[in-house]
Amino acid sequence: MTKKIRAAIVGYGNIGKYAIEALNAADDFEIAGIVRRSAGEPLAELAAYQVVDDIDKLHNVDVAILCSPTRAIKEVAQKILAKGINTVDSFDVHSQIVDLKNTLAPIAKANNAVSIVAAGWDPGSDSIVRTLMLAMAPKGITYTNFGPGMSMGHSVAARAIPGVKEALSVTVPMGTGVHRRLVYVELEQGADFATVEKTLKADDYFASDETHVKQVDCVDNLRDMGHGVHLTHKGVSGETQNQLFEYSMRINNPALTSQFLVSAARATTKLNSGAYTVIEVAPIHFLQGETDKLIERLV
Amino acid sequence: MTKKIRAAIVGYGNIGKYAIEALNAADDFEIAGIVRRSAGEPLAELAAYQVVDDIDKLHNVDVAILCSPTRAIKEVAQKILAKGINTVDSFDVHSQIVDLKNTLAPIAKANNAVSIVAAGWDPGSDSIVRTLMLAMAPKGITYTNFGPGMSMGHSVAARAIPGVKEALSVTVPMGTGVHRRLVYVELEQGADFATVEKTLKADDYFASDETHVKQVDCVDNLRDMGHGVHLTHKGVSGETQNQLFEYSMRINNPALTSQFLVSAARATTKLNSGAYTVIEVAPIHFLQGETDKLIERLV
Repeated sequence: MTKKIRAAIVGYGNIGKYAIEALNAADDFEIAGIVRRSAGEPLAELAAYQVVDDIDKLHNVDVAILCSPTRAIKEVAQKILAKGINTVDSFDVHSQIVDLKNTLAPIAKANNAVSIVAAGWDPGSDSIVRTLMLAMAPKGITYTNFGPGMSMGHSVAARAIPGVKEALSVTVPMGTGVHRRLVYVELEQGADFATVEKTLKADDYFASDETHVKQVDCVDNLRDMGHGVHLTHKGVSGETQNQLFEYSMRINNPALTSQFLVSAARATTKLNSGAYTVIEVAPIHFLQGETDKLIERLV
Repeated sequence: MTKKIRAAIVGYGNIGKYAIEALNAADDFEIAGIVRRSAGEPLAELAAYQVVDDIDKLHNVDVAILCSPTRAIKEVAQKILAKGINTVDSFDVHSQIVDLKNTLAPIAKANNAVSIVAAGWDPGSDSIVRTLMLAMAPKGITYTNFGPGMSMGHSVAARAIPGVKEALSVTVPMGTGVHRRLVYVELEQGADFATVEKTLKADDYFASDETHVKQVDCVDNLRDMGHGVHLTHKGVSGETQNQLFEYSMRINNPALTSQFLVSAARATTKLNSGAYTVIEVAPIHFLQGETDKLIERLV
């Protein structure tokens, strides 16, 4: 029997919960433990696991699945890589991925560790599809259309706006990669809606899209974690025009993110030390199984 | 300026013709020459290129794009790898890909060369999509539905049946990965249709599908090189059922095959010596450009 990969879950929100399920469903993993700031308040659902407030209290961790909010990832990843533990994250600010990777790369190399960054579904699995489409038709335009569905990254960003108690951001595809965002907010007592709306619309996450902010009494009643994407590429292979490619999915958002993080966690164990985005990883590394058998099945 | 990748085209049928177009459309390549058995009969369309009957007559070839029929690939690839020249091919017998790769791997390694096998679209780009879908939802069923469209591999196989002068094999999708094949044949003088039909239906390429053979006067009037695929995966991410993924394309078949071969030829220059299937190659290697810029654009 091969030794199992020991994974720690760092952060226990939606992604962390689904990451436990994805790890339990994978024969080649075992859960080393869960790292929570509030480890002192035990949760019944985590009774089966070692829950700690510091990853140093867990033993023989091969890889840490970072389930913290995007804005915390850089700092957390640096600390954990410095201990020689691999990391994966679903960092989702597209414009800062190169910086994140290049910040983590020297730390990973110096500590003989591997980091795969931005390994959710977009950025993440969708990035691989976009790369493949460009390899098939190098000239042409790719449109990524999201939703309709709840964006976790945008919901977290909205919740971070002062005065917002709870928020849900729905992405609505308007075609050709243009989106409308509907942000439903529940305010803290005494908060001013107009100020919240203005601050939210100016936030990096929302500034470039048509954004509508709506105040509601209870965000929780609106919550549906289904999401989707429709990605199209029309382009030129060699000198042949009008090559048409489409990719679409309808998925439970945190379930897919967590599953792909776990697949990426597996890939970290097969790579040379350093930091990678998902398009820099051979797809076979995401899968469990022997190379020849996977080739027979998939190629 | 970076040195251009010097590519030789080996074999000059449909794939070879489109490979010239794909190479000309790529800034980072130059055509070292074309290898044809019948190099002595000059073709006007190849006047701009060095046409030879042996790859040894070309200078400084980095990579050979093998455009020979599938059944010739193994022998041709071995000879060329032994000269220290990288190879790519669109070998398309799914059940023999592992054997091809494992035959070529030691020759490639011994000669400090790289081979990427089965780098058309199926096997090829579709294989990457199947791998990705499994990384996103490890449990579940993937169906690959082809066509309707002309299958080049099957047409070549049909043309190789004794008594067949010209043939065209159309793949018709019947859903859930089941296909019907309609094979249109033009017979050689004196050939017996019943014998041709029987031999063809028993051929490895056709034996496992519902195959209809039809005799026609002129195959050329039926030729349309458009093709397509519709690939679906319904599966489980972690413990979440009913995750739905779809990929489809409508393409000119040889144009896509040749383009992906050229993208794979580029990838050979970025890999350690050895033989690879496309799922063992990081997708970014298929593309031209600087790593950070590609990440900014695609991830």
